[in-house]
This record gives sequence, structure tokens and C-alpha cells, in this order.
Amino acid sequence: MDKFSIDSRNKIKRIPKRGHYDKATVYEILDQGFLGHASFVIDGQPFIIPTSYGRKGDTLYIHGSSASRMIRHLKEGFPMAFCVTHIDALVLARSIFHHSMNYRSAIIYGKARLVEGDEKWEALKIVSDSILQGRWDESREPNPIEMKATGVLALTIEQASAKIRTGPPGDDKPDYELPIWAGVLPIHTTYGNPIPDPLLKEGIPVSNTVKEASGNKV
Amino acid sequence: MDKFSIDSRNKIKRIPKRGHYDKATVYEILDQGFLGHASFVIDGQPFIIPTSYGRKGDTLYIHGSSASRMIRHLKEGFPMAFCVTHIDALVLARSIFHHSMNYRSAIIYGKARLVEGDEKWEALKIVSDSILQGRWDESREPNPIEMKATGVLALTIEQASAKIRTGPPGDDKPDYELPIWAGVLPIHTTYGNPIPDPLLKEGIPVSNTVKEASGNKV
Repeated sequence: MDKFSIDSRNKIKRIPKRGHYDKATVYEILDQGFLGHASFVIDGQPFIIPTSYGRKGDTLYIHGSSASRMIRHLKEGFPMAFCVTHIDALVLARSIFHHSMNYRSAIIYGKARLVEGDEKWEALKIVSDSILQGRWDESREPNPIEMKATGVLALTIEQASAKIRTGPPGDDKPDYELPIWAGVLPIHTTYGNPIPDPLLKEGIPVSNTVKEASGNKV
Repeated sequence: MDKFSIDSRNKIKRIPKRGHYDKATVYEILDQGFLGHASFVIDGQPFIIPTSYGRKGDTLYIHGSSASRMIRHLKEGFPMAFCVTHIDALVLARSIFHHSMNYRSAIIYGKARLVEGDEKWEALKIVSDSILQGRWDESREPNPIEMKATGVLALTIEQASAKIRTGPPGDDKPDYELPIWAGVLPIHTTYGNPIPDPLLKEGIPVSNTVKEASGNKV
């Protein structure tokens, strides 16, 4: 099994049995989402930015305005961390202390570089497909001015960890006698019904990607 | 209107019309969620941790294991950033370039201190109520050993910004003639049906908080 190296940076210390370091587990969590949070440091000040992403192999692609602080700073190769979190359920125990959540989270560490040329086009398509598979092919492609206005970072994943909790609550033994309801309250994230642009020309049907997504899990 | 001070740290530079600095807007976004991401720096390395939170006034409370890296580091008052992001919809334009999302995000900056005594108890209840209002009162309260094992941070909100996008896509004028479906694909996050703990004693009904949440928006 292909695993990330483990040291103090990525080691899961709290409840280590929930920790995973194999690439398959980390990449599955990344591939199940399209929104993450990037963490970086400028002059000792931590910053955090929510951003969409896509993955290819050991590379995470992030895009933004070429002029954004995130792109301008991170393209210099400063260390960054990136986190993707899926919350699956509230875990309701008998004791407040043992309340928890079922979740899948992945934290990755690495440095980014600015992407140019053919890789930039491919990276933008990877991010687009990660958000809504196939939408790129339905849309008007970027023109040179738009490509110039867009900055794309490739974050090489040096290290990562995943943390996963599943299943029912775990209470202290005596608490199982208490008359308190305990269990799991699932959280579902789904696409609703598409809302056409008020400026949509008459007679244009809902596209396939949107039709397929509607009503389904995000 | 009570506003945060604005400087280079929290100023929204990209699409500034989406930026908000008034406390009411920032706090509404915080209060509509219970999961955020904390960003902090140790020896120049950025870290990021997903964590639940609750708010009272200008203070954000975060809890975790007393032994966790996040609590042990941040209680020393190092600068931190914290982000809460709600994704409301995919915004599907005719051009790839103008694809976007409808979202509400808040980023806060400040320093934390360790919470003790009565405030610690109150803070834990605030975090619990932020996740599922009323559940604290249904549960077995923390005992002294559990309180000791739990670390609570109070992050005083020094500065913040919110960024909000709503509404349909905005395309370049000529693209409105293209035969491409455009509009908004809403994203809904809801609670499903509660799953009782397999070890739940017979005859214990689903509690009120869980009954009320089920089927509703998270």
C-alpha cells in the first residue's frame, strides 16, 4: 500500500485509530469533495481561504484570480496546508463528553508552483470536472484573456493524513443505563432543482450534467 | 452599524462588492454553522484543523482535547485565523470562466486564550447548543475528569470579513446568445432519519432535539 511518510507534522495524535496515511484513503476523501480550505502564512500571520480544487495523482490543483493574495503568495513555493472535511452525521451520546461527529477529513501538506501552458488548461478542466463532471464540455472554453486572468497552482502533496469516524456513539459503561436517546443523526448534502438564469434564452433545455446532478448527492 | 476595522489583513481585494465587514453579517454566517477550520503557524509551518465552534458576542469558543496540538499551541495567544464557509449553490455560466458558486463565508482573525472555571462550562454549552440546540439539557453533564480532559479556547474576534455571492451567473454580453443552459444548481444540507444506537435500551423514545432536527436544514 502506497503510504505517506509520517512525522510530527502529519501524525494523528488524538484517537490515533481514526488516522490513515495511505494514499488511497486520503485521495478518496479529496475526490469526494470540491471545496477545501487553504492555510498559509505571511509575515507570521496565518491566513485561510476557502477554495475549490481538483486532483491528479499526487498533485492538487487550485485556481483563482492571478491577482489574488493566495495565488501571488503561494506560487513562490511557501509551505501550505490544505484541508477537506466531509461531515456525515452528528453522533449523539448519552453523555455530553462523548458527543462527536462522523466525518472524513484529509489534511495535506506541501508547496505549490504556478502552472503554465498545456498543464494550466488541463488543470482548469480537472478543477471544473471535480465540481461538476462534464460541465467543461458543455461550456464556452476560456479565451486567452481569461486564461491570463486566472492563476492556477499545483500543490505537490508531500505528506498527508486522513481522519475518519464512523458508527454509533461510544459511551462510558454506566451511562448505557441512562434513559437518554443515543444514536446517529445523518447529514445529507444534495443538489436541489436547477434554477434557470432569468436571462436564459427560450428553448434551451437543462443540460445533461445539471439534469443528472439534480436530486443527487453533492 | 458596528463594523470591524479594515486593513490589508482582512480587506477583500477580489470582487470587493462581495465583501462585508459589519458584525451583524459576519456573526450571522458564523451562527448558521457549527463547523469551521482553524489556521495557525508553528515554526513557520501552517496547520489547519476542522473543528466545531460556538459564538457569544465577540468571542468564538472552540473545544478539543486538552492534549491536542491545536489547544496546546493556541492557548499561548499566537495569531490564528478561522473560517466558516457555507456553499449554497453551483453557479453555472455559459463560459467556463464565469462559473462560480453562491456562498457565504466568514474569516476571523484574533488570538485565543484558555478558558477556565464557570466560563468553561458555559463555553462548552455554547458549542453544544451551536451544534444541536437543546441537546446539552438532554444529556449527562460533564464530570470533573471529563472537564479536565477538555480544553476550551476563547478566540477574541479582532478583525473579520465576510464574503457573499448570491444570484444567477453573470456572463459576458456576447455569450448570452450561446445555446448553453445557464443557471443555479442549489445545494441543500439536511438531517436524515435518526439511527438509534444498537445498544440503546428498549423503550427510550427519540429525544425532542433529534425529532425536531430530522428532515430539517442543518
